[in-house]
Amino acid sequence: MSAPSPRTQQALRQRNLSLALRAVAAGGPLSRAAVAARIGMTRAGVAAVVDELLRAGLLVELGPGRPGTVGRPGSALALNDRGPCGLGAEIGVDHLAVCAVDLSGRVRARVAADAANRDHPPGPVLERLAGLIEQVVTEVRGEGLTPTGLTVAVPGLIARDESTVVRAPNLGWQGVDLGPLLPSAPPARVGNEANLGALAEQRLEGGAAERPGDDGGPGAGPADRPDAAVADGSGRSPGPGRNFLHVSAQIGIGAAVVTDGELLRGAHGFAGELGHVPVRPQGRPCACGGRGCLEQYAGEEAVLRASGIDPARARAEHPGPGGRIAMLAARAADGDARVRAALREAGGALGVALAGAVNILDPEAVVLAGALAGLAPWVVPAVERELGRRVADPARTVRLTVSALGAEGPLLGAALSEVDAVMEAPGAVAAG
Amino acid sequence: MSAPSPRTQQALRQRNLSLALRAVAAGGPLSRAAVAARIGMTRAGVAAVVDELLRAGLLVELGPGRPGTVGRPGSALALNDRGPCGLGAEIGVDHLAVCAVDLSGRVRARVAADAANRDHPPGPVLERLAGLIEQVVTEVRGEGLTPTGLTVAVPGLIARDESTVVRAPNLGWQGVDLGPLLPSAPPARVGNEANLGALAEQRLEGGAAERPGDDGGPGAGPADRPDAAVADGSGRSPGPGRNFLHVSAQIGIGAAVVTDGELLRGAHGFAGELGHVPVRPQGRPCACGGRGCLEQYAGEEAVLRASGIDPARARAEHPGPGGRIAMLAARAADGDARVRAALREAGGALGVALAGAVNILDPEAVVLAGALAGLAPWVVPAVERELGRRVADPARTVRLTVSALGAEGPLLGAALSEVDAVMEAPGAVAAG
Repeated sequence: MSAPSPRTQQALRQRNLSLALRAVAAGGPLSRAAVAARIGMTRAGVAAVVDELLRAGLLVELGPGRPGTVGRPGSALALNDRGPCGLGAEIGVDHLAVCAVDLSGRVRARVAADAANRDHPPGPVLERLAGLIEQVVTEVRGEGLTPTGLTVAVPGLIARDESTVVRAPNLGWQGVDLGPLLPSAPPARVGNEANLGALAEQRLEGGAAERPGDDGGPGAGPADRPDAAVADGSGRSPGPGRNFLHVSAQIGIGAAVVTDGELLRGAHGFAGELGHVPVRPQGRPCACGGRGCLEQYAGEEAVLRASGIDPARARAEHPGPGGRIAMLAARAADGDARVRAALREAGGALGVALAGAVNILDPEAVVLAGALAGLAPWVVPAVERELGRRVADPARTVRLTVSALGAEGPLLGAALSEVDAVMEAPGAVAAG
Repeated sequence: MSAPSPRTQQALRQRNLSLALRAVAAGGPLSRAAVAARIGMTRAGVAAVVDELLRAGLLVELGPGRPGTVGRPGSALALNDRGPCGLGAEIGVDHLAVCAVDLSGRVRARVAADAANRDHPPGPVLERLAGLIEQVVTEVRGEGLTPTGLTVAVPGLIARDESTVVRAPNLGWQGVDLGPLLPSAPPARVGNEANLGALAEQRLEGGAAERPGDDGGPGAGPADRPDAAVADGSGRSPGPGRNFLHVSAQIGIGAAVVTDGELLRGAHGFAGELGHVPVRPQGRPCACGGRGCLEQYAGEEAVLRASGIDPARARAEHPGPGGRIAMLAARAADGDARVRAALREAGGALGVALAGAVNILDPEAVVLAGALAGLAPWVVPAVERELGRRVADPARTVRLTVSALGAEGPLLGAALSEVDAVMEAPGAVAAG
């Protein structure tokens, strides 16, 4: 057979860098020998790879003889907590947020602001967002971190160019290329909030379950910190499984479909539009042109109306992310029968849409996130009832779980996706 | 970096064999030089690979100087039409069928029989099938072909072991391992009929669109033969696209989900259960335990009832695959208003289910196959109407097409999947 081509050798080098970096991320601090054992390379091969990762500022050496190290003492390698970091931003219907996470997935800076973005033109919204991004960049640079990329989460359909918002009905945006409106550095891209929420879910649960205890050092497990997630990208099965549906309700309802560990994007990048699955085919007209879409029964506005609450007034009185959700949760907890009935109806409609999705996708788990997480006690029983009667099958179990990230998933996932990009192609990162 | 391991070298060898074989399948007859150019290997490298494929009986040499060859004359390579072949079988509710296809995807033998398999125990059904398999094997061996594997298409949920029928409601089978009931040679596996139908669709359209004209020789394009399909597996975009939903109605309704060119299997292997997507959530009870499933409105029995026809009597009077479909099509063509209304209702229900599926999956195309192909003129307009109003989006186009394979897809796909296996790992095939 022919020898590997230069392109193949370059790909092999990139792959080895990635494997070594992920090994440290998943199990660090680790000696070179431990890295070699985990990724099945020779020690000499690993030494060269590690040198490159150290030079690029992705790894640091913690010095020899750390307690708990098995075998002969060796310098322990850890992720550099003053190295590259990923930036995430979120454009919500009524808020903006920006955060930065380091290589271990720890949140190192976060700012947020209430903002009435509905039906506002993208220009001013992005201008305000740029100010928040600037704040976070200044803060993390002060800590010695270097932002390598920015992902912006948007509640809408994003084109495969990762720049154009094809349609974000709850923002009132259509066919807008956000690229020219975003800061020129670091490189930026736009993603769907539900997809990014699902990414955060995978990383958090996949990592937190297996990370070693807190040793306080860089690269240590962040499982003890409520504001942190793990982006080890080790490829092992994450918490919700390798096949799951992640439902991310904010004002509208979106979903991410993860199959065999990969996000399903669809032909146009629009997969996961659960909010427009028909659940009452002859029911209420929807802004999308259809009738009886899930969003007309389980979206925020529908739930407010069914609760006897005027949506516009509720938005004015309970602004910001989570404002109306907290109000609805308080009322339901107080025993408000109308709110409880509205949430039951929303859960029932969601259950019908999920029954269809489960029949089509056959996932291991369905994760409810965003507003649904905050209202879970009153929504979940109805979802479970519908799923139970519609996809009951002794040979199939579908776990229904509630995200621990609540509404924070999309923002965190946006930043983690940038860390993932570094983990995937560490050779592309220059030393910070 | 470290040198490739023996396992890597073995994988490289297998990959090169596969690339060369697929190159000939896609564009043959080809000279060695042409193969080298297409797969980006040196001529020396290709010579060794081709020798191995010739020894294994996968390729044949047609001799030098074929007309139309560009450049210096060289011996042309073609797929061996007396080499390995794949066997496909189909267990339908009311028929059995077996076929064999050679490496170029041409059907070389086919037998079928009406059979009342509904609620019959698997033992006698499989015994009868074994007789048909034996007939086909004898026939193709007589032509010098060697069966390398058998795939059996079943209308039901198949476990990931590719052997156990978890549930085939229209056969009345549940939790049956067919493995011990199948012939011991060649190696056999069981697959879902909708998934295998989708595979045939990909191969047929992917190949027929680009094959060169008929030159009558072995390995030539079979596009001129109605009973043939192409299994070139060249990896290029097939006809229905790399993201499509393939709906395969027989008695029940199943679907296959193809995303980025790959079949979506789901966590338990059950993905694509379109027949149990709720379309009238408070509607008719279904045997699955749910209510208002698509099958209750668009399955064969539902359409017969809505047409005022007794299903049991229809099965007796119009047995075999396609019997009732032909009867319904004849009545609809004659202007029978009740049948036409029933097919419109079926199309409307299918359109609602597909609207949900399109929102979740974002495919390029939806292909209607099986019974739906035979009834397309009366079903498709209602499907289009529902899809049009429910997933209208200037940025998204979903092509709705009707399969040219009709009800033949699952059987053909079963056999083609075995040819695919040979194309993927040619080194595993001993000379015939």
